[in-house]
Amino acid sequence: MEPRGVGILGAAYTRFGERQDANMAELAWEAFRDAIAEANLEPRDIGPAFVSNMGMWSSESLPAVLVSEALGLGGGSMRVEAACSSGSAAVKAAYDAVASGGADVALALGVEKMKESTTPTVVELIGRAGNYMWEFENFGLTFPGYYALYATAYMSRYGAREEDLCGVAVKNHYYGSLNERAQFRNRITVEKCMSSPYVAWPLKLYDCSPITDGAAAVILASDDFIRRHGGEVTWIRGIGAATGTANLSRRADFLGLDAARRAAREAYARAGIDPEGAARSFDLAEVHDCFTIAEVMAYEDLGFARRGEGISLVREGQTYKGGLIPVNLDGGLKAKGHPIGATGESMVAELHHQLLGKVGGERQADVRRGSALAHNVGGTGHYAYVTVLSLEGR
Amino acid sequence: MEPRGVGILGAAYTRFGERQDANMAELAWEAFRDAIAEANLEPRDIGPAFVSNMGMWSSESLPAVLVSEALGLGGGSMRVEAACSSGSAAVKAAYDAVASGGADVALALGVEKMKESTTPTVVELIGRAGNYMWEFENFGLTFPGYYALYATAYMSRYGAREEDLCGVAVKNHYYGSLNERAQFRNRITVEKCMSSPYVAWPLKLYDCSPITDGAAAVILASDDFIRRHGGEVTWIRGIGAATGTANLSRRADFLGLDAARRAAREAYARAGIDPEGAARSFDLAEVHDCFTIAEVMAYEDLGFARRGEGISLVREGQTYKGGLIPVNLDGGLKAKGHPIGATGESMVAELHHQLLGKVGGERQADVRRGSALAHNVGGTGHYAYVTVLSLEGR
Repeated sequence: MEPRGVGILGAAYTRFGERQDANMAELAWEAFRDAIAEANLEPRDIGPAFVSNMGMWSSESLPAVLVSEALGLGGGSMRVEAACSSGSAAVKAAYDAVASGGADVALALGVEKMKESTTPTVVELIGRAGNYMWEFENFGLTFPGYYALYATAYMSRYGAREEDLCGVAVKNHYYGSLNERAQFRNRITVEKCMSSPYVAWPLKLYDCSPITDGAAAVILASDDFIRRHGGEVTWIRGIGAATGTANLSRRADFLGLDAARRAAREAYARAGIDPEGAARSFDLAEVHDCFTIAEVMAYEDLGFARRGEGISLVREGQTYKGGLIPVNLDGGLKAKGHPIGATGESMVAELHHQLLGKVGGERQADVRRGSALAHNVGGTGHYAYVTVLSLEGR
Repeated sequence: MEPRGVGILGAAYTRFGERQDANMAELAWEAFRDAIAEANLEPRDIGPAFVSNMGMWSSESLPAVLVSEALGLGGGSMRVEAACSSGSAAVKAAYDAVASGGADVALALGVEKMKESTTPTVVELIGRAGNYMWEFENFGLTFPGYYALYATAYMSRYGAREEDLCGVAVKNHYYGSLNERAQFRNRITVEKCMSSPYVAWPLKLYDCSPITDGAAAVILASDDFIRRHGGEVTWIRGIGAATGTANLSRRADFLGLDAARRAAREAYARAGIDPEGAARSFDLAEVHDCFTIAEVMAYEDLGFARRGEGISLVREGQTYKGGLIPVNLDGGLKAKGHPIGATGESMVAELHHQLLGKVGGERQADVRRGSALAHNVGGTGHYAYVTVLSLEGR
C-alpha cells in the first residue's frame, strides 16, 4: 500500500540563541504561532501533537503536556526523543499519523531550553547520551571528543587539514550572518577559526555547534485536507531512519556514519531518487553539522561526494549557493544554533520556506529542481533521519 | 481514507517486580524474545521500533538505542514518552507506522527499571511529572496526594467509602495471585487493606500501585503481511488519545478524567462501538488502576457505569470474571505492577493473549465477544490512551 500524500502547510522556527526572555511554553508558542498562521488553521484543527525535547537539563518532565496546554491543543500527544535527531523523529511520527489516514492534520513541535544550565553541565549531560555504561563511565568521553575521533581518522585517511574543516565553519557563519533567527550573526575567517582554542584536538571552538534555546514547528496535513483547505505546500516524499550501535568499538570505521548511510538509502528509495545522482537531485540540503567534521561526513554519507572527497566540496566551495549542492543556507547547527529537540523541525521548516521561495534575499536558494533534503543525526550516528521534501506531491 | 488493518502477531511481558537480576537491555530482551517467538519472526523482520521509557531515575539517556542494539534491530527508532501512558503511546506510534503503509512490521517495547532508586526518590520524581512549576514547587504534591484529591471528591459526592475502594485492591490482588508474572502474588482482604497505613488520606498502602521493574513488547504487522505470514492474530480496531490540562485548578471536577473520556469517545468512534453499550461490547478490560480510585473513575470514564455508579460495580463484584465486565484479570497496576514505560504494552499483551485464549486457567476470560479494551492514563489525566482490540479485522 502506498502511504497517502502528506504535505506541510506551515512551519516556523523561533530566533535561536540565549532566550531568557521566553520560558518553554512561550518558545513553543512563538514557533507554533508563526506555523499555524502560515497554515491558515486554528488550534482546533490540529490532531495529534508530537513534541520533541531532550530535556535532560530541564525541570519540566512532561513537555508534551506543557506544550499542548500552552498551544490550546487537546488531541493525543506524546514526547518523542531520538537525541539530536528528536525533531526529525517527531516529523516522522506526525507524518505516520497523517499518512495512516487516522488524522487530517498533525503537529511536530520541538523545543529546548539549554541555556539555563551551565556549559559544563550540558556538555556532560550530552556526553552521557553516548554509550553511557561503557564509554562515558569508563572513559569520560563527551561529544567534542567523540567527533574528534572521527576528525582525526578522516584527516589521517584522506589528508584533510584543520583549515579544511574550518572552511565549513566559515561557510555556515556566513549564512548565519544573513539569517536573522541565527544564534551567531558574525562572519569568521579560516584564520579566526584556526586561532580559536582547542576543545578536543583537532576540533576547535569554531568547529563546534553551540548550546542553544529555541523552538520549531511543522504542521503536516493529508493530501485530501490540503486539496480542500488550499495553501502553499511542500510535500514529504520520503523519510529514512536508522539506528546504529551506541558502542563505538563496534563501528567499522570512523570515516562516516553507517546509520546515516542506511537512512539515506531508505529515504532515496521511498522518494524515488537515484543515490548516484543525489547531489543533482536537490536544490539544497540541511545537514547535521554539530561539528564541522560531521558536515563533511554527511556529504559522503548522503552520496553528494564519494568517500574521501567530501573535503573537496569544502575546498572548492561547492556547498555555497551556486555550487554543486548548497548546504545549510540557514547557518546550520554551527551558526543558526542547535536547540537539540528543535533542530530537526527547524531544518524542515527552513527547507519548506526555501522550496516555496519565501526565504528571499541572499540566503534564498535557486529551487528549479523543487526538491530538498534534511539530514539529522542523533548521538554520533546512534540515530539518523533523512527527510526528502518536494514541491510536487506523488 | 481508512487506515489499513494492523494486527498483533506477538506480545509479551516479563515478570514484573524487583528485577535486580536483569539490566535494562536484558529486561527488554526478555519481553522481545517471547513476543518474537510468538510472532514467528526474526529481528531482521522488524521495521521501526518505538521504545517507551520514562527513565527519570535512569542513567541511560538513550534507551531506544540501547534496546535496538540489544535486540539486533537497526531500523528507525525513537523513544516515546507520555508519562504512565508511554507504553500505549508507543503502541499508537507503531500502529501509525504500519497503518501508513510505510512499514510491514513495527515494534512497541516498553522498559523501566525503577527499583534502583529509593522509593522516596521515585515518588518525588513522579510527583514532578504533575504540574511542575506551580503544583510541585509550590505545594509539593506527589501522586498519592493528587489521586487522594480525586478520592475525597468522589467519596464526598457519591457516598463511596474507603472499604469500597479497598474492594478494587482485593480484586486485583486476587488476580495477581493467579498471575505468575505479577509483582504481588498475595491475596488480601478488605480488612487487611483497611488496616494498612495511610499514604495520603483516604488512600492507604493497599490503594496504591507499587514501584516496579519490567518490560513488555508488542509486535504489530499489516494485514497484507499477516495474510502472507500467518499466525494467530488480534487486531487493533481503534485507538483514542487525548491530552488534558496539567493544572488541576483548571479541571472541571475531581470525579473523573476528562482526557480519558475524550480518548474513549475517539476509540469507540474509530472501532464502531456504541458508547452506551460499552460494558457489553468487551469481554474484558485493562484499566489504569494506579490507585484504587483511578479504577473506579475509569469504569465511568469508559462508560461501563454511569457517573457515580462505578463504585456499585465494585460493591457488586461486577468487574470480576462472570460479572458485567471483568477488569484487570492480570492483577492490574495494583498487583501485576507498574513499570511506567512498559505498562501500556503489558496491557495490550495481556488482552492479546486473553482474546486468543492463551492465558488459560482461572484468569482466562470468556471471550465470546472477541473484543477487549485497554485504558492507560498518564499523570492524573494529563494523557489518556484507549486501545480497542478485536479478534476480527476490519
